[in-house]
Amino acid sequence: MIKLPVLFDLEEDKVKREIIKRKARRVLVQLPEGLKPEAPRIASLIEESGALPIISADPCYGACDLALDEAEMLSADLIIHYGHSEMESLKRLIDVPVIYVEAKANISVKDVVEDALHYLKPWNNIGLVTTVQHVHMIKKIEKILRAAGKKVYIGHEPGLKYPGQVLGCDYRNAKAISNMVEAFLFVGGGVFHAIGLFLATLKPTIAADPFEGRAHRIDDEAKRVINKRWADIAEASKAKRWGVIIGLKIGQFNLEASLKIKRDLEKCGKEAILLAMREITPENLLEFPTIEAYVNTACPRISLYEGRKFSKPVLTPRETYVAIGKMKWEEYLKSGLL
Amino acid sequence: MIKLPVLFDLEEDKVKREIIKRKARRVLVQLPEGLKPEAPRIASLIEESGALPIISADPCYGACDLALDEAEMLSADLIIHYGHSEMESLKRLIDVPVIYVEAKANISVKDVVEDALHYLKPWNNIGLVTTVQHVHMIKKIEKILRAAGKKVYIGHEPGLKYPGQVLGCDYRNAKAISNMVEAFLFVGGGVFHAIGLFLATLKPTIAADPFEGRAHRIDDEAKRVINKRWADIAEASKAKRWGVIIGLKIGQFNLEASLKIKRDLEKCGKEAILLAMREITPENLLEFPTIEAYVNTACPRISLYEGRKFSKPVLTPRETYVAIGKMKWEEYLKSGLL
Repeated sequence: MIKLPVLFDLEEDKVKREIIKRKARRVLVQLPEGLKPEAPRIASLIEESGALPIISADPCYGACDLALDEAEMLSADLIIHYGHSEMESLKRLIDVPVIYVEAKANISVKDVVEDALHYLKPWNNIGLVTTVQHVHMIKKIEKILRAAGKKVYIGHEPGLKYPGQVLGCDYRNAKAISNMVEAFLFVGGGVFHAIGLFLATLKPTIAADPFEGRAHRIDDEAKRVINKRWADIAEASKAKRWGVIIGLKIGQFNLEASLKIKRDLEKCGKEAILLAMREITPENLLEFPTIEAYVNTACPRISLYEGRKFSKPVLTPRETYVAIGKMKWEEYLKSGLL
Repeated sequence: MIKLPVLFDLEEDKVKREIIKRKARRVLVQLPEGLKPEAPRIASLIEESGALPIISADPCYGACDLALDEAEMLSADLIIHYGHSEMESLKRLIDVPVIYVEAKANISVKDVVEDALHYLKPWNNIGLVTTVQHVHMIKKIEKILRAAGKKVYIGHEPGLKYPGQVLGCDYRNAKAISNMVEAFLFVGGGVFHAIGLFLATLKPTIAADPFEGRAHRIDDEAKRVINKRWADIAEASKAKRWGVIIGLKIGQFNLEASLKIKRDLEKCGKEAILLAMREITPENLLEFPTIEAYVNTACPRISLYEGRKFSKPVLTPRETYVAIGKMKWEEYLKSGLL
């Protein structure tokens, strides 16, 4: 097994330096699930730097889930948030210093991008996107694609830190160039972002995973998600009693959207109950057996990736408008599910 | 199926009256898992009273889990907390009005207490305890026991609202009378509190469940919990790397205890990593594969009831002192596990 610290740059020197420079006494650490096994190593590092380390052990799937309340409760004077880049929109809410360690992957992308070229054969104009773990390699990837005769497009929209970067919930860097490209290449681990990319653009999408060392076309898998969305919307359209989920994670909190959709559901003769929650899990929703469908104003990927886990439809706000006949399915699809 | 509102008094008139009197505009509702199905009914009631209802859909297992942060985030001007009585120790932390609806059970206890008398035959001095759902029946239960010739003891310690009341984590009303009684009678639903009662007192314990309509002796089930505690402590005594869990629920938060036990573990040559978390679940702990044992400074019942769910030992602080040889198992047992 390859040791994680070799795979991901945990920027140990920077972390030490910053703790010492800021004279931090108590440091709250947030890690995405894949890096949580490194918690003991990171805790030692912080302790060596003269501060008390506290590891946040609740799930953390993005910079949207910044542990500000927890830092306050624990009197932490510094948060170190690993694995995600800073969310522009949260800056104004932050009242404790936060260091982002983006956990860049120390892994070659050359072979897997060359593998991806086989799949990219039919197209000349390629949109290139990746996660924060590989953005430092984007020029290298671009070069490989160019050398193979491709025209490469990389988007960079305001609020996203790096050119070509996508988040699980934010594909604006892909959408911005979508009408100029015939297909997308996503470089990164797993299928989560690649599926999101297809849902956002509906363009042929090749996923090149440097960790698995293989590329493949993601479209069919993403289309199964779309089919499930269709089925969930159809089922929800018959629902009388709706739960409107307000996400309590700071970057997912959208009370205004929840109140609006409650009013819109009620205007259509539906019953709508506001449900505030931190973790949107199948178990938590099972406690409300008479609610027939949910609209989720928090993380859209809970609907668009984990839909199968729930026994009732859990729609995004736009899907809800399709379900109550205020938006056409085709229009929803055309504008991208994300 | 018996409808829940018939079984539990949701004090609808009081709730309406209080909302109107306090001119509440936005009301956050907390319900224990068993009452969550009533959320739509309660939401309607609040809406009829002129306020916006928001249901907290995260798990809630006690008044220790008061949703103060959530109320602040949602700008709620009133919390209605169902199913538990107020925790004395939290009063000084509360900055938003809270109404407690204790959800008294509308169910006769007569038959089940008479059933319990068969099991209580060997003893004359009986300690009587129950949950907040049945405390209003305690005089009636006492009378039935007296009529059968029993001497009845009911404790009432400071900080507990009602005589004879126990919480999942607080059996002081039982411990206070324990040396005067030969056996305990617990009246209430399920086995959770009855097992806790045995763990706290080690006295013969009869559980009389008015919902199931049957009484039985709980000792063997509780002894299996004790055996599991012994096994977990034995396993943890070999652990080098410990996780020290800081509970982030307001009434479970005990940073000082966590810091103390971290120091004490380190004095014994152990490694100790502070882990802050809201929900202590097997899934969340599985993310730390190199941690060999946990000490949990939050809800003790996670260790003393759900121990089997975890793949690694999750000890209470006192159990941890047994594991590192600073307390004898017999001493721990004798003073009560809770």
